Parts: sequence; C-alpha cells; structure tokens
Amino acid sequence: MNINERLLKLREYMERKGYDALLVLTADPHGSEYPADHWKFREFLSGFNGSAGTLLVTHHYVGLWTDSRYFLQAEKQLRDTSIELFKEGVQGVPDHITYITNILPSGSVVGVDGFTISIEQYRKLSQRLDQFGIKVNHLSSAISDVFNPRPDLPSDEIIEMSLNFVEYTRQEKVELVRRFMKQKNVTHYLVSSLDDIAWLTNLRGNDVKYNPVFYAYMIITQFEEHLYIDPHKLTAAISRRLDEDGIKVSLYDHYEKNLRSLPPDSRVYFDPARANVRNVFALPSNVRTVEGPSIIAALKSIRDDLEILHTDRSHKRDGIAMVKLLSWIDQNVASEKLTELAVAEKSLELRSAQQYFVSESFSPIVAYGKNAAIVHYSPTIESNARLYPEELLLLDTGAQYADGTTDITRTIALGPVSHRAMRDYTLVLKAHIALAEAVFPLGTRGVQLDVIPRLQIWPHGIDYGHGSGHGVGYFLNVHEGPHKICKIDNNIAIRSRMITSNEPGIYREGDHGVRTENLMICEEHSRTEYGVFLKFRTVSLCPIDTRPILMEMLSEAERKWLNDYHALVLEQLGDDEQLTPTEKEWLANACKPI
Amino acid sequence: MNINERLLKLREYMERKGYDALLVLTADPHGSEYPADHWKFREFLSGFNGSAGTLLVTHHYVGLWTDSRYFLQAEKQLRDTSIELFKEGVQGVPDHITYITNILPSGSVVGVDGFTISIEQYRKLSQRLDQFGIKVNHLSSAISDVFNPRPDLPSDEIIEMSLNFVEYTRQEKVELVRRFMKQKNVTHYLVSSLDDIAWLTNLRGNDVKYNPVFYAYMIITQFEEHLYIDPHKLTAAISRRLDEDGIKVSLYDHYEKNLRSLPPDSRVYFDPARANVRNVFALPSNVRTVEGPSIIAALKSIRDDLEILHTDRSHKRDGIAMVKLLSWIDQNVASEKLTELAVAEKSLELRSAQQYFVSESFSPIVAYGKNAAIVHYSPTIESNARLYPEELLLLDTGAQYADGTTDITRTIALGPVSHRAMRDYTLVLKAHIALAEAVFPLGTRGVQLDVIPRLQIWPHGIDYGHGSGHGVGYFLNVHEGPHKICKIDNNIAIRSRMITSNEPGIYREGDHGVRTENLMICEEHSRTEYGVFLKFRTVSLCPIDTRPILMEMLSEAERKWLNDYHALVLEQLGDDEQLTPTEKEWLANACKPI
Repeated sequence: MNINERLLKLREYMERKGYDALLVLTADPHGSEYPADHWKFREFLSGFNGSAGTLLVTHHYVGLWTDSRYFLQAEKQLRDTSIELFKEGVQGVPDHITYITNILPSGSVVGVDGFTISIEQYRKLSQRLDQFGIKVNHLSSAISDVFNPRPDLPSDEIIEMSLNFVEYTRQEKVELVRRFMKQKNVTHYLVSSLDDIAWLTNLRGNDVKYNPVFYAYMIITQFEEHLYIDPHKLTAAISRRLDEDGIKVSLYDHYEKNLRSLPPDSRVYFDPARANVRNVFALPSNVRTVEGPSIIAALKSIRDDLEILHTDRSHKRDGIAMVKLLSWIDQNVASEKLTELAVAEKSLELRSAQQYFVSESFSPIVAYGKNAAIVHYSPTIESNARLYPEELLLLDTGAQYADGTTDITRTIALGPVSHRAMRDYTLVLKAHIALAEAVFPLGTRGVQLDVIPRLQIWPHGIDYGHGSGHGVGYFLNVHEGPHKICKIDNNIAIRSRMITSNEPGIYREGDHGVRTENLMICEEHSRTEYGVFLKFRTVSLCPIDTRPILMEMLSEAERKWLNDYHALVLEQLGDDEQLTPTEKEWLANACKPI
Repeated sequence: MNINERLLKLREYMERKGYDALLVLTADPHGSEYPADHWKFREFLSGFNGSAGTLLVTHHYVGLWTDSRYFLQAEKQLRDTSIELFKEGVQGVPDHITYITNILPSGSVVGVDGFTISIEQYRKLSQRLDQFGIKVNHLSSAISDVFNPRPDLPSDEIIEMSLNFVEYTRQEKVELVRRFMKQKNVTHYLVSSLDDIAWLTNLRGNDVKYNPVFYAYMIITQFEEHLYIDPHKLTAAISRRLDEDGIKVSLYDHYEKNLRSLPPDSRVYFDPARANVRNVFALPSNVRTVEGPSIIAALKSIRDDLEILHTDRSHKRDGIAMVKLLSWIDQNVASEKLTELAVAEKSLELRSAQQYFVSESFSPIVAYGKNAAIVHYSPTIESNARLYPEELLLLDTGAQYADGTTDITRTIALGPVSHRAMRDYTLVLKAHIALAEAVFPLGTRGVQLDVIPRLQIWPHGIDYGHGSGHGVGYFLNVHEGPHKICKIDNNIAIRSRMITSNEPGIYREGDHGVRTENLMICEEHSRTEYGVFLKFRTVSLCPIDTRPILMEMLSEAERKWLNDYHALVLEQLGDDEQLTPTEKEWLANACKPI
C-alpha cells in the first residue's frame, strides 16, 4: 500500500465513524518522546519519519505540522504525496488547531486516538475547538483498523540495574513515593511514564531505541504495587525478585480493566501531562481524581550520591572515547577519505569498547559544513558528506552506560574556517560559558536560566530555535525532565543534584552550524541573608576546540573558564591507560592554556 | 467598634450563614490594584492598611497573609490584636489555602465575597480546597452586613482627555476592539477593568487615589456600547458627547441585571483574570462564554505616536522637577533640618508647578538610611526620619500629568557612604544598565527579561523580592499591564511601543536600601535572518548619582552607558528656562562624564 491508498483507507474509516477530520499525533499511551514502531501511525500514513509531527486528515485534505528541525526532511519525504507541510513556528503559519477552526464548520467532529493524547492536551484541544462549535471524539480506533500490517509491541527482555549502581532498592523508592502520596492525601497513584517505571523498579528494557525503557504501567497504593507488563519480558529470576519485593505483576492489557474497577471513594493521583485520555476516562465516576506533576519524576531528577559518583565515572569513560575520536579525526582528515557516516561508526566503535557500554543514547549527529545548519541532522547513506581538511564539523553523540547516560556536542575545525564561522563559534562558546558560570537563587526555573546563554548572542541579532538545556536520565532517557532550560515555562525549579545539558548553538543555513554541549550537575554555591544560591559543575570531559576561537572576543574571565576546564580534562583523562602516546600528546595539546 | 468587636460581628454573621471560615481579600469588583475605601473590608476588620493582604477568619482563629513589603508594618498594626501574621514567601510559611486545608476538616464551608475574587482565582481556590473536601461559597455578603459604617462609592466628577493628547477617538478605539471580537467570534465583550474603560472612553476619573480611573463597567457588542456608571459623575457636556458617540449610559447597579438578561446564544467574551465570580455566575446558562486576556489591555499597552511624543514631553517636565528636587536636597541637607516628609512635600510642590500636572501617581517613597531597606516604605509622621549629610536617601516618586504618567527612583548620597553601601549601589547600577541595554528577539516575555538585571547581583548572593519592571499607563495606572518584567510568567511578550520600568534594587535590613528606576519604551533594534530584535530607550530624564559608584566595578561599556545617558539628560534639560543658574550648575556637575 502506498501513502494514497493508506489515506484512502483512513477516509473510509472516517466515513464509517462519522469523523470530519482525524488528528494523528506522534505519541504512545505513555507520553514517550520516541514511541515504539507499534505506535508510528503518523509515519505509516504520511511517510514522514521525523521524531515530531502532527497529521490532520479531512475528507479532502491532509496537512502535516512539524518543527524547524525537520523542515527539510519533511519537504523531501512529502514531495510525492498530496500532503501539505506546515512549518511550526514560522511567522504566519497557523498551528493545527487554528487551521482546523479555519477549515471545518461548526458542528464538525474531529477524531483522535485517546491513547495518544494526554488528558491535559485533550482538554486544551477540546476547549479551543469548542469555541468554534467543533467537537473532539477521543474514541478513534483508526490505528487498529487502518495500521496494517502493524508492528507488534516490542517484547525485548528486561534487565535489572546492578546493585553497584543504585543506592535505593525498589522497595525504598516505593516508600519514598508513598510518603508523597500521604501528603497529597491519595490512595492510588497511576504511573504511565516508562522512565518513571524503570527508575522505580530498578529495571531497564530495550523497547524503544536509545531509551532503556520497557512498556508497562503501574498502580501504587499505600499497601501494594501492581506492575502491568508483558510477562514474557521478565526472566524467572526477575519475576521472583519482584515477587519477593511485593510487586504484583499483571498483564499489560489488564491495566485499563483494573482502572475501571478501582474501589469507590478511592482518591486517585495522576499527572495530567502524562496520563492518556482513554486511561483517565476509564476511571469510575465514584472515584475522586487528584491531578499533579509526576511524583516519581521529581524524585528521579535529584541524583543521589552513588548516582553522582557513577555519573562522573561514566563521563570519564565517555570522555576517553571522545578524545580518541577527535584525535583520530584530526590524524586522518587530511589523508583518508573520511565521511560523516565513517565518523559516526567510529564513535560507536570507540564507545562500545568502554566498560559498561550498553548502546548509544540517541541517533548520532555528525554534520559537516552546511549540514550542521540542520539542527537534528543525522547522516544517511544518501546525505553522507565527505570531510575535507577545512570548515567545521559538528558532533553530537552520547551513550547509555549501565552507570550513566551521556550527551556531548563538540564543533571542531577540520582546517581553515571562515571568519564568520569563527565569530559564531566564539559567540556560542561565550554563551556556553555564561550558563556554566551562572549563579542563581534556589527556586530559579529553567525558563529564567535559558536567557543566560542567549544574552551573549541576542545583541548580534542571532538566536537558536532549541532549548539551552534538558534534563538527562541515569542510564535512562537522554531527554528526561521534569526540568528543562528552555523558553517555555514548565514551572519547575532547577534544584541541587539535577543534571542538565548546556548547549547553545548558532545555525547559518547553507553555511555552517555550531553547538557546544556539556552536561552539568547543579550544586550549592552559597547561603546568604537572601537564601540559598546554586551553581553548576560540568561533568562532561572533552577538550573544546580552541582553533576556531576569535581570541579578542573572549573576556579575561571567559579565557580563565576555558583554561580551568581544560586543566580539569587533562587532569582527569591525561594519564588514562586506554590512551595511546599519540592520543595523549593530542590531548595535552588540545588542553593547552590560551 | 474596635477590631475585636468587628471580628465578633463577623463571626455572628458566619454562624448565621453556616460558614466555617471567611476569606477576606483585598479587591474590588474590578480587579483594581488599589480598591476604593468602599471595598477596604480587610483593613476595617484587621486594622492593617498595607496595599496587599488576605485575612482568614474562622470561629476560633484569625490569620493575615501579606508580602515582604509589609512585614514590619503588619507586625506593628496587628500587635494589639489576636490576628496572627503569616509572612508570604518566607520558607516554611504555608500559603492561606494550604493553611485552610490544615485547620479545617473535610465538609467545611469557606465563604468569600464573589465580587472580590476573579473567576480564575476562584477556580484555583475551589480546586485546591475540593481535594480536601472543603467547599467554597462565593455568596458571602459579609461586607454589606458587617462593614459599618461603610464609606460610599466615590462619586467624583469625570474629565475628558484633551484631544491634543489622544490620537484615537473613543469610536475608533471601539472599532479596533470590534475587529478583535470578530476574530474571536464573539457577540459581547464584558469589560470590568477600570483602566480599560478609562482608555476606551478617553475619560479619566478620580475614584481611586493616584489612579485616574472611575468605577464603571462596559458591555461592547458588534453594534452597541453600554457604559454602566453613576450618572452623577458625568457632566452634561460629557453625557452629550457620549450620546453623540453612540455610547449608551446605564446605572452602575444595573450591570449585573443586564448580564442576567443577555440574549440566548450570545457568545460572551471576558478576561477570567479580571471578571469577578458574581458577574460571571450572573450570565444565563444559554449563553456561550469565551475566555481570554483583555482585548483592551493589549491594545492600550502599545503606545501610538502621539502618546510617545507626550510621554517624552511629560518626562521632560518631570525631569525638571526631579533636578530641582535633588539640587535642593544637596544645597540644604547640611544646613537645614530636612526630613523625609519635607522632601516628599517638596517633591509634590515642585511637580505641582509643572504644566499639565494632575496628581502624584503613587504614595511617594522617601526613605533615609535603614528606612530604605523597607521596600514600600512611605514616611509617616511617626516614622519621619531627619536627614543628615551622610548615608543614602532613596526617592521613588512620580506624577500623573494630563499627557503621561511618570515613576522614577533615585538613590543619592547625602554625604559619606559606607563601602558596602557603595558596592550595593554600584551593583544596582550595573543591573539597571544591563536591562537598559538588553537586545532580545520579538516574542521575549517579561519573565525572561527579568533575569538580565539579576545576573549582575546573583553571583554576590543577593536578590531582590520585587519585579525588575512593570508596565505604566498613559495618564493612567502607574502599574498597568498586561506586560511586566518579573519572576512569574504571565505569558505576555514585551512588544515594540510598550513602556516598562527598569528598577533593580538591593535591600540590607537595618542598614540601607538602593534602587535605581527609569521608565523605558521598547523599540525595534534590528531585523536579521533570525527575525526582529527589540531594545529599550530610556525616557526618564534625571541624573543618576555618580558619587556612590565604586568606579573599578564598572566595565568600559557600563561607564559609556552612564556618560551617554547623562549627556542626553543635559542636552534635554540643561537649557530649560525653569532652572535657576544654581540648578543649571548643579545639573551640569551631576552630568559630568566619569
């Protein structure tokens, strides 16, 4: 079946069910950033396989909305279809809800699969459409009717976190959660986020590429914990230990049924940003719902001592792999026919050789020259660029280790670089340093910190379309909240022991792209009459290329920050026995004070 | 009746009506920042007369919540009562809603006067209390039952804006509003904010001290405008012109009745942050409500060309008065027995002499030495401090002119100042300059800009408890949104032609306080491939004292900003014929480059 045949089949379904439009979101029932193939209905219908996108299908019309990361890719993949591309965030382009109100008359019905939309999003959608007399129906089953053949839900085996790498047992974590449930005066806590469940159970899976999570739900009461999961994923040993720890295992498919039969007068807590509509609507009318942010996400985001120790250790190993990679590129770029894909393969090879390596933590970005201006570019066989000893190369890579998750970006000069690119490179470095050096009072939120790096580049009439930083899991998701450093206010304060990335960038279409990214852990800076103040400590260890810096643009303090950072990198990695003499020499040179 | 007798009477009322607690807010039916005396029920019940406070009365208990501006004042005024003071924002102090859930059992009923709470606040309150089984009833009429004697609603006469000072007639403004109503697909727009009504009608009143507004409501349809107002406030001439302009005048008290009789199927728009609960609940069930931010507030916040011209002119006059005031203080502080109140009186006298002066725009803050550490200190006969030729004096003053509203703060050295105070003074100046020099992309919100000045002082473990800036009306409220530069995200972007204050500060309890405030107008900075970038232009004109500056703390760029600003002040004010030779000499000296 080609795209048009698929859309035809969908329209037959819409006709049958009386929908005037169908909204196809990129989501699974757990609010995952990357859904498993089983849930990739938008990709099936449109052929567009970027990680973000919303499809609107009416009887006469199809539109796809995606963000700036995917404009070029979407244009290409939609070229031979009748699907119109809407570029989110571009001046004058309506969002999909506004568009619906523009094209559909009052009295229309828009269908959406209630498993793929959170109750919070659903309320906003309904409210906005309701103003125009348009109804939303969340019972669409188009996915099961039309998505054919549909990939099965993944059934990969689950592993248990090594006891060396976790400070709290699952039972201790459950008790922590129960304390918060008591404060909130609730009897049941519904957990649907996969990273929350992985953290709480000290289990990891392989159901979603790059994210070591597994499909499951949980219900926690003051006395019991129920894990809803495909039991084939559990080894006998893990099943036994879950049983010993009092965690009752039920079938994944029984979750909704069990929601329907919660006892009357239960007080049920869930996160409206994560719980899907179908699950919430399954709750009996005689239970009382209490909504609030995920209790587990808040606990999980604060690293304990052991996690910090291993975060540092895994970042040291990741740094060794990065030093080997950057030194290898420098050695070979002039003599060998290097390509973006070859560098990506080398990155994987070098990281795989590190202790406790599990997988990459996201699709590696190796972007040469103008390719780097495409923010989420990953090289493919068709796009794969040959590298020459000139211009900038942007590398955004990371790994899952059994004791930590890494994510690091370096932009390096492969040879001579234009003055304009050097200026942008230096501005990004100044922006990165500004955030790394920030001092701020307890209670400061990501939206406030996001401004700090941008202040270095706004006066030049430049901005970047992504956040300045995101939370990172501990052998979990590389994008993991609830905290985030971005323009949108999520009302979450950056607290001591949280980990975030620091990744300002500048992108010049058709020319070059620059980003410099380290992970940082938040620590206490001081206590004064005005309260507690916080700062960051950088945990990523890898030289920042000094060759493309316009020295006169750096202040004395910025120069000192860079020299101090390089001294730290050299101290931590310089004597590592994994490095060859050539690599050690390369490192010492790369860390030389400026 | 003393406080205890009043509380006793209130408790009798609660007993009669079956309320377990009563919440007394500081508000009027229009969401005004400063309610008229007619609505000052909290002050009547507690004796505390700060501008912000919430009183909670149960049968056994009374608590008052207020913010840091009023901690000292509230402590003093509540001293001889049984009322407990809760200091908002202090670590460990519960907010009043949490406190209610702590002391009242499930099944309790909390009363609140629906005229004094917006529908948005009411929903939040109900939702939070509902989780604990506590009900809120918005029909409390305690104010009319217990507030005795109660001051009448003010009935001051209304004046019309001079045609020289307004670019758009009221009919043109109404047509602008109608355009937005069409976009939002609504038939009726309910306007309850007094500043919105004053702006739309080009009328000004005198019902609230310092704010040139008048008590009224409006209903705008696609064909008609109804103004609900006490008709005695209108002169015959104004009544006639309103009539000519098609504005129908009805009695203020008829507003709610008319809401009840809106035609079926009306689509009624209102701002849930401003419309009070009683009004909203008066709407018939067969009308459709559409909620959104005030249409008028958004229009009003963007100054037109004539308003900008007159904003500059009125600020020039205000600058002349300020120069006269500061020069007078410098001349007299050593020889005369100056006091805070004497300076406040002189400020009023000098401003009153300026063309188009109407009134002060807020209660003047003249705070000497340690008094300046109390953020909203206004001198009283009891507190009035004698000034000596040493330490810092903080002056936060402003005026209503018929062609603009001003608000300016200067902190000046009356003689020798401690090194610590000079350090704080210089940090505040650096913070002020940082915001004045900010460049930021279109779409940037106040919460983002608020960080910019703070970044100068956070590294020193210092912060200030108020916003960095607020919107200012045009011969209207001195605090006038919807925009604001503060830590809370109101989701409003700072746009070109908006006016905001720039007022970082540092407060050292028992020692000194520093604040430097100018008003700024937002303008376009540049257009680049990344979009439109904005900047500010300072409109306040008055020297910033250079004597308390620690020169070594200023960067070259900061020094240049100050010298450029002083050159502008001197150019604009230096030749003014109102200045005496002595004052001119003082000004030239104050504006000397550093």
